[in-house]
Amino acid sequence: MSEPINIAFLGLGVMGGPIAGHLARAGHSVTVYNRTAAKASAWLDRHQRDGLAVAMAETPADAARGKDVVLSCVGNDADLAEVLFGAQGAVAELCPGALFIDHTTVSPETARQVAKATSARGVLAVDAPVSGGQSGAEAGALSIMCGGKDDALAAARPIMDAYAARIVHVGGPGAGQGAKAVNQICIAGILGGLAEGLRFAQQAGLDTDKVFEAVSGGAAQSWQMVNRWDTMTRNEFDFGFAIDWMRKDLDIALTEARAHGISLPVTALVDQFYASVQAKGGGRQDTSALIRHLPDGSST
Amino acid sequence: MSEPINIAFLGLGVMGGPIAGHLARAGHSVTVYNRTAAKASAWLDRHQRDGLAVAMAETPADAARGKDVVLSCVGNDADLAEVLFGAQGAVAELCPGALFIDHTTVSPETARQVAKATSARGVLAVDAPVSGGQSGAEAGALSIMCGGKDDALAAARPIMDAYAARIVHVGGPGAGQGAKAVNQICIAGILGGLAEGLRFAQQAGLDTDKVFEAVSGGAAQSWQMVNRWDTMTRNEFDFGFAIDWMRKDLDIALTEARAHGISLPVTALVDQFYASVQAKGGGRQDTSALIRHLPDGSST
Amino acid sequence: MSEPINIAFLGLGVMGGPIAGHLARAGHSVTVYNRTAAKASAWLDRHQRDGLAVAMAETPADAARGKDVVLSCVGNDADLAEVLFGAQGAVAELCPGALFIDHTTVSPETARQVAKATSARGVLAVDAPVSGGQSGAEAGALSIMCGGKDDALAAARPIMDAYAARIVHVGGPGAGQGAKAVNQICIAGILGGLAEGLRFAQQAGLDTDKVFEAVSGGAAQSWQMVNRWDTMTRNEFDFGFAIDWMRKDLDIALTEARAHGISLPVTALVDQFYASVQAKGGGRQDTSALIRHLPDGSST
Amino acid sequence: MSEPINIAFLGLGVMGGPIAGHLARAGHSVTVYNRTAAKASAWLDRHQRDGLAVAMAETPADAARGKDVVLSCVGNDADLAEVLFGAQGAVAELCPGALFIDHTTVSPETARQVAKATSARGVLAVDAPVSGGQSGAEAGALSIMCGGKDDALAAARPIMDAYAARIVHVGGPGAGQGAKAVNQICIAGILGGLAEGLRFAQQAGLDTDKVFEAVSGGAAQSWQMVNRWDTMTRNEFDFGFAIDWMRKDLDIALTEARAHGISLPVTALVDQFYASVQAKGGGRQDTSALIRHLPDGSST
Ligand SMILES: NC(=O)C1=CN([C@@H]2O[C@H](COP(=O)(O)OP(=O)(O)OC[C@H]3O[C@@H](n4cnc5c(N)ncnc54)[C@H](OP(=O)(O)O)[C@@H]3O)[C@@H](O)[C@H]2O)C=CC1
Ligand SMILES: NC(=O)C1=CN([C@@H]2O[C@H](COP(=O)(O)OP(=O)(O)OC[C@H]3O[C@@H](n4cnc5c(N)ncnc54)[C@H](OP(=O)(O)O)[C@@H]3O)[C@@H](O)[C@H]2O)C=CC1
Ligand SMILES: NC(=O)C1=CN([C@@H]2O[C@H](COP(=O)(O)OP(=O)(O)OC[C@H]3O[C@@H](n4cnc5c(N)ncnc54)[C@H](OP(=O)(O)O)[C@@H]3O)[C@@H](O)[C@H]2O)C=CC1
Repeated sequence: MSEPINIAFLGLGVMGGPIAGHLARAGHSVTVYNRTAAKASAWLDRHQRDGLAVAMAETPADAARGKDVVLSCVGNDADLAEVLFGAQGAVAELCPGALFIDHTTVSPETARQVAKATSARGVLAVDAPVSGGQSGAEAGALSIMCGGKDDALAAARPIMDAYAARIVHVGGPGAGQGAKAVNQICIAGILGGLAEGLRFAQQAGLDTDKVFEAVSGGAAQSWQMVNRWDTMTRNEFDFGFAIDWMRKDLDIALTEARAHGISLPVTALVDQFYASVQAKGGGRQDTSALIRHLPDGSST
Repeated sequence: MSEPINIAFLGLGVMGGPIAGHLARAGHSVTVYNRTAAKASAWLDRHQRDGLAVAMAETPADAARGKDVVLSCVGNDADLAEVLFGAQGAVAELCPGALFIDHTTVSPETARQVAKATSARGVLAVDAPVSGGQSGAEAGALSIMCGGKDDALAAARPIMDAYAARIVHVGGPGAGQGAKAVNQICIAGILGGLAEGLRFAQQAGLDTDKVFEAVSGGAAQSWQMVNRWDTMTRNEFDFGFAIDWMRKDLDIALTEARAHGISLPVTALVDQFYASVQAKGGGRQDTSALIRHLPDGSST
Repeated sequence: MSEPINIAFLGLGVMGGPIAGHLARAGHSVTVYNRTAAKASAWLDRHQRDGLAVAMAETPADAARGKDVVLSCVGNDADLAEVLFGAQGAVAELCPGALFIDHTTVSPETARQVAKATSARGVLAVDAPVSGGQSGAEAGALSIMCGGKDDALAAARPIMDAYAARIVHVGGPGAGQGAKAVNQICIAGILGGLAEGLRFAQQAGLDTDKVFEAVSGGAAQSWQMVNRWDTMTRNEFDFGFAIDWMRKDLDIALTEARAHGISLPVTALVDQFYASVQAKGGGRQDTSALIRHLPDGSST
Repeated sequence: MSEPINIAFLGLGVMGGPIAGHLARAGHSVTVYNRTAAKASAWLDRHQRDGLAVAMAETPADAARGKDVVLSCVGNDADLAEVLFGAQGAVAELCPGALFIDHTTVSPETARQVAKATSARGVLAVDAPVSGGQSGAEAGALSIMCGGKDDALAAARPIMDAYAARIVHVGGPGAGQGAKAVNQICIAGILGGLAEGLRFAQQAGLDTDKVFEAVSGGAAQSWQMVNRWDTMTRNEFDFGFAIDWMRKDLDIALTEARAHGISLPVTALVDQFYASVQAKGGGRQDTSALIRHLPDGSST
């Protein structure tokens, strides 16, 4: 374990709440901020009961003031801009030598801008989007893809060790977000194929358990197949990583691609199919609900 | 090991040659037929040198005559029709009680017709497409997805054990081919995403090794990512499962889908992208050469 | 008008019935054949009442025997093969010097085979798919795209003048069908865009009449926009050219493309969206029903 | 003709230059502003030589000061924001009762914000994207799709009559931009089909002139087919509406669709294919250069 550090944590959502908890349990002194204060109070109660060194603040600025390390895990680019650069934003309070780690999935471009703005203040910054989902956050076993300078990573690693199963330093500022975009692009294609494969099996009257047994061990295998085939066959989608989040991430990928002259036809197509599932009310369902866009034989 | 059996094997290509060899080494008496006789002679020489009970025949009919079990592994639906129902086809020689196993990837519809035709003669039939590729065939470690009646499977299992790592009885006649179609559909989507993800990484200037490290352990993981990322980054495609074969298989899937009223947009799209790669001369390259369809920044 | 000729006409469907009528009214002696005899009887009654020189036959062979010109307009490639080469097929009755005109939409490959088979008998052949629909057939104002040798076209033109507004000799055998494939490919893209454009207008709350007024006069104009926008806004699809026919035609285009190494991604995609509309029961609806595949805000 | 009016015109590009000229020739007093001053000087010279009442200003604010009507035709949303709301922006100079007409293609959302901001100052606003291209602008024969309140339209019509062939009042603020988005969506699909249809014709060895003759008169007809087939067959693309602009417009459509939960798969796909053509250096070529994304048989 690392030396106890004075930490601020901004954003106590599905991912941020558990991460902040791991930091407190690691012995750090953690001051949390959440837009909806009730969530911060509840978090505080829970962790104070365990005798941990925790506090809460009313604004990002208040939370960040005088801290050695500030972390954030909010929703999207605009949200990050608000907690960092808004009227009560944290950046103005960051002192030279402080470290800023962002776990939000935002665009590489935003990450590069944040790195520039913090660097101008002598602050080290790491863009550090995660994968592993809610369960990974709770278990403290996230995969973290990092962008930033070497010294920023060196400073961030011991902090993130409290909740990471894997930390990869991908490259300079924005590279963590770039890797996350790659991750989401790959998933879009995988689910595009998986949805069609399973629907084909169902509509062709095949035993889907047997098909899984037959195809899951070879060249068609994927994490999504191993972990979602079963729930998909049962039309269970109310868990996991939400389509609304996925579309945000695919928008990031498509926008970055546009800037770099990269063509992403499969990704763009799957993204539009997700729009169809959103239109059916599936926005908060797991990304595997993509299959709902394919006709299932119940003529409508 | 099972009792020595009189076997005919039709089609000594990349897959059939090694499979027939495993059958001979398992102690069976194997008579081979190949369209191009030279390949059959070479196979015969190699296996006679090892003192195995092997022979060759000039026609499928000659090969099949009086055998207990006939296997085939030829190219496509038309090829199978020729070796079974052509002027010198094997079917006319199949006796009641004989067993027919087909390892060719053909359409479920063709598999059902073969099952019907053989069943009319009192012959047991199994459609048994494989996955695992040339290396799986050579190592005797194929995954086999089977369609057919229970008694046909019961008879076929001990034979196929000579070269299978996994045998799954998916369902009745055609179900093996149905599962294979699902397999290829899933792969089409996976490679669609993987190609775009990797191209994005390259064009965005990311370190592709680091990106792999960051994304290959989680929700974006796939067999294709684990086994092809590296070769794709080096533009190495002259190995593996050929795009020409893949398009044959996707045509099977799309045709079967058409018959069942199933919509396969991602599959159909990736199939057309493969047409672009074929147009660039990539027909014999591994399916991961799909990435060649995406611009790589070398303006042309 | 041309000299009265002894004509056989095979296939009295939506298109064939009216075409055969125009031939009789042009003064030719017309013997019709239809698989479902009742349709032929009804056609016969109607045209005998008008005092025309018409007759019916029980088989294609009976109809074709001794005729100078044989025309056909049946459903698809298999249907054409049956009326031409089946047990009671017309080809065996075609004499040297006779003319065969096929109005069915079939594959260029089938058209070339028919041309070869008839040419071997000294028969002139024209593949002559039409556009203009039921109303064009009834009004005798079809557009006909022709493939065949010059002498075949020279012989066919005066016959087809009875019901054509435009006859284009595109090229040798199969070229008429090739042009028809181009026609259907273009329509697939047009409707793909039109459906999305109209749905966008509806979902964005725009006045669709005003949008039509604004966009129908310029670079976004198409025959489909001019003739289908209005019916699409009213969800009227029970007329026109059926999706089931369209998918047959797109299958022809995609299969021909496969043979020539041509990539048709938009076409392939729209074809799959048509599968979704078929799954909703829209197979017999006009191709403009493509829009039904797009969510319309009524969450389901 | 309407009464002479004091007009400011912002943005003298390919479209704006000729439009401003028509306004001057209509007898209005026109003060122009262009970011690159040289272009404004040249425009001024040309029109002063004709004895017209023209002037130029150094900033949008200077141009707009005291004018009755301000028009703009700049590049994109950000550009419009700059000339309106930037440090030297025009909005601050708009007086109650003035009229603002924007001919830039921007997002409906931006148009609504502009309408709101100007309305707060008692200014009438019309979003008025055009179609007809450079030749339409020069000939004074543009199609204009308008959004805005009735009184704004009433005021704007006599002004725009100087260069419009057609003015359609589509609806309230943003509706003009909405219609323009529909326009571009329709074109994306049309060109998607047209490119594949023509490539098919070429690769299948058909005579493209004959195919055009056969298909351009019926259900496959489109403005694009009539006006671009010929140039596409000759690989002539250095004219017309640039792909870079088209992608900006498709981005607007896709972003608006995202906000409204609309699914635009064909549009999204064609947009990605345009990325491929941009990667080949075709960004400034006409939208019909989409065909360059399809293999043409010259293996590379
Ligand atoms: N959920 C998952 O499985 C995964 C999520 N991610 C990414 O992690 C990030 C967070 O996801 P998750 O925790 O699920 O999201 P939640 O919606 O659960 O939490 C978001 C948090 O951000 C806060 N927030 C949002 N906007 C603002 C703002 N403008 N100002 C201040 N606070 C704000 C919210 O506050 P309030 O409580 O007031 O709403 C909330 O605390 C996202 O970028 C997501 O894409 C990455 C991998 C997996
Ligand atoms: N290669 C792979 O990695 C995999 C292949 N498969 C499937 O297995 C099947 C065989 O593939 P593979 O072994 O690679 O193919 P090959 O081309 O190497 O072999 C095909 C064999 O079939 C014979 N054949 C083809 N047509 C005829 C015919 N009309 N009459 C008689 N014999 C014929 C060929 O004879 P000849 O020697 O005269 O050409 C040859 O022996 C295919 O269906 C393929 O899709 C499945 C999984 C993996
Ligand atoms: N409808 C349209 O708007 C257009 C159609 N076409 C093309 O024209 C062709 C005909 O279309 P349409 O007239 O609408 O179709 P219909 O289904 O109305 O007519 C088909 C005709 O073919 C006959 N037929 C089908 N199969 C056989 C067979 N195996 N043996 C003998 N007769 C057979 C049918 O006989 P029976 O009466 O016994 O069923 C019927 O007379 C199609 O290829 C279509 O794609 C082209 C342009 C427009």
